[in-house]
Parts: sequence; C-alpha cells; structure tokens
Amino acid sequence: MQFSSALLEAAVNEFSRLPGIGKKTALRLVLHLLKQDESQATQFSETIARMRSEIRFCKRCFNVSDGDLCTICSNAYRQQHIICVVENIRDVIAIESTQQFNGTYHVLGGVISPLDGIGPDQLNIDALIERIEKENTEELVFALSPNIQGDTTIYYIQKKLNGRNINITTIARGIAFGGELEYADELTLGRSLQNRLPVEKYMNR
Amino acid sequence: MQFSSALLEAAVNEFSRLPGIGKKTALRLVLHLLKQDESQATQFSETIARMRSEIRFCKRCFNVSDGDLCTICSNAYRQQHIICVVENIRDVIAIESTQQFNGTYHVLGGVISPLDGIGPDQLNIDALIERIEKENTEELVFALSPNIQGDTTIYYIQKKLNGRNINITTIARGIAFGGELEYADELTLGRSLQNRLPVEKYMNR
Ligand SMILES: [Zn+2]
Ligand SMILES: [Zn+2]
Repeated sequence: MQFSSALLEAAVNEFSRLPGIGKKTALRLVLHLLKQDESQATQFSETIARMRSEIRFCKRCFNVSDGDLCTICSNAYRQQHIICVVENIRDVIAIESTQQFNGTYHVLGGVISPLDGIGPDQLNIDALIERIEKENTEELVFALSPNIQGDTTIYYIQKKLNGRNINITTIARGIAFGGELEYADELTLGRSLQNRLPVEKYMNR
Repeated sequence: MQFSSALLEAAVNEFSRLPGIGKKTALRLVLHLLKQDESQATQFSETIARMRSEIRFCKRCFNVSDGDLCTICSNAYRQQHIICVVENIRDVIAIESTQQFNGTYHVLGGVISPLDGIGPDQLNIDALIERIEKENTEELVFALSPNIQGDTTIYYIQKKLNGRNINITTIARGIAFGGELEYADELTLGRSLQNRLPVEKYMNR
C-alpha cells in the first residue's frame, strides 16, 4: 500500500499491528477517524492511553481494576467466601455477562502447561492458597478450559489444599444448549456421560 | 458485556465505535494493548492523535498531506500535467499501490448524487476547473466508480470544460460493474489505468 502522507501511514501501521487487523481494515479505521471531529479522535486516543497507564490488577483476585481492589472484590453484596478460579480476564467478563454468579474470582494468569514452560510459579497459585487460608473460603469453583492443562491445574491446586475443609466444584461440562450431539467432540461427550445428572435435576434447571 | 473496570469498559467502547468493530473484537484489541508494554499503547494512541491533529489536505489536489502540498504534487518526477480525478483518498491509495500511474490527482470528495443531496458545490469541482485553466493541464483521467453518479459527475465536469483543448479519458472498465474501486485488486486496477479510454468512447457504451 502506497501512502502520500507519513502521518496517515504511521496511523495505519499502528492499527494493523493489532491482532486480526489487516492493512485494508486499518486504513478503513484511520479514514473513519479522519472523517470525525478532531475531538472524537482525541477522545479515542486519550481513552486508550489512560486505560493503559491507569489500569491496575486487583491485589486480591488479579482481575483488572481501577483501584487497589476491583469492583467485584469491594462489593459487599457479592458472596466473598466463594471463589471462581479462572484463567484470564476474558473469562471473568464472560462469566459476569451471564449474571449467574455472585461470588468472587481469582485470575490465575494461565494454566499449568509444562510443554509451554508454564509451571505453578508463573501463575497466581500461591496467592490463591494464601487467600483461601486468610479468608476462610468456603467454596472454590473451577472454571478452567476442559483440557489436560486445565485438569492438571485443578489437580495441583486441590493437592495444595489437601486437608482443608473447603468445597471444591467445577462448572458443568457437557454439550452446549442447542448443540447437536453428533458434532460434539469425544472428550466433551465422554465427560458429559461421566458427569451425568439425575434427570429430575436436569429437567428442573 | 459486564466489565469490572470503568477504564477497560471505556476503552472497549471507544474501539467498538469504529466501523465493523463489535464488542468482542474491541475487547480482544484492548486486552492485546493491555498485554503489551505501556510504551506500545502510548505509541499507538499518540500516533493516532498526532495523525488527526496534524494531517492536512493538499491545497492543490485535496489529497491527505503532511504539508501544504502533498508528496505527489511536490514530486518533480510526476507528470504534473496529467490529473487523475478520484472520489476520495482511499482511491488515491489504491491507484498509487498499482504503481501504474505517474501523474497527479484531484480528490473530488464524492460524486454528484442528487438523491443524497450532493451537488457540484459540495465537491472540489470548481477548484478542479480553476486548476486545469491555471496549469494548462493536458490530460484528465477519470477514475470514478462505474455507476450513474460517477457518470453524471464526468458529464458535468466535461461540460464545464467545453471548448478547452484537453484530452479526457476514463480508466478502462476492468472493474466489475457496480464494483467499488477500493476493493479492486491491484492488477485489475493497474490494467484499467494502462488501458484508459477517451471519455466519448466510454459514454457511448
Ligand atoms: Zn478483585
Ligand atoms: Zn496534492
């Protein structure tokens, strides 16, 4: 792509550095900002800059936060003795969007994956164990990806908690609602068979 | 989508205001910037802000420009007596990317479209006529979208130039009828520039 303005080219390059944004899309976005009032583009760039420089991670749960504690940890109406363990911030947003969970979170920052060189020390696991002891947590809900890394992580944390009186659950695995059985992968289908529920419980959902 | 950070939410909202960017994509882009060094996000936002505040429009051809004249108008190696008439900046970039045209441009800012309330006065047409007279332009190459608005615009400008000794051509129709110029591949667009036709020949189709 040939530009006759270095300013335009620089802006297109910045956008196309973002994941999934090609040169043509980047150009479309930049020309859109060019068409808007200057105040709109200023607001855009200042909001991004401010977000990046001011955002912090919650000292308790490692979720993104505007202050020392995130809005979930500092909300007295949430069940502070229930912790949902997730891999990343995106999972927090996904679960919050269901409005089906009223406890707190703990963001691990990944899962144990020896092949990728990710061990327990790279994750916020020690902080989780300390937190559970300090807060006398009653329930730990694992919401990790249903794969071997997720399972290893659950196993590791469970072992670390050995002897503690705490209720440990995981979110149910199964065929997505509306999903067709024949297209489900074997692992999911297998798990959903292992974890079969009394039909009354299922029908009453 | 439920966020637990107002900073994060504001950034996602800014991105999702851009055309073709939904909430999920916006979140992906913001989380990407959050993962990068702060300097990367700063560079991103500063480049956008600087582009918007410093970019100008070339006084001669209305292309985007970093100074009073764009790099094409101020390039002595370009054929300054040939003007390619285009609708917008995107078209300049598309044609420049073919590397098949060594003249200059004139960005109209649109085409005549009575239904959209766009008449000749809203476009850079008077400036084009003045420019042709002042510069003694030898050739005018129309590279407008192949539709009724494009044709009307060609017709209007041609009439305004009535009597002037100037060669008027249009790019060859290699582009699918009804297709938008900016989405044409470089080869097609390049060929259609090489094979440009006298406008009478085109209008008689
Ligand atoms: Zn928190
Ligand atoms: Zn120019």
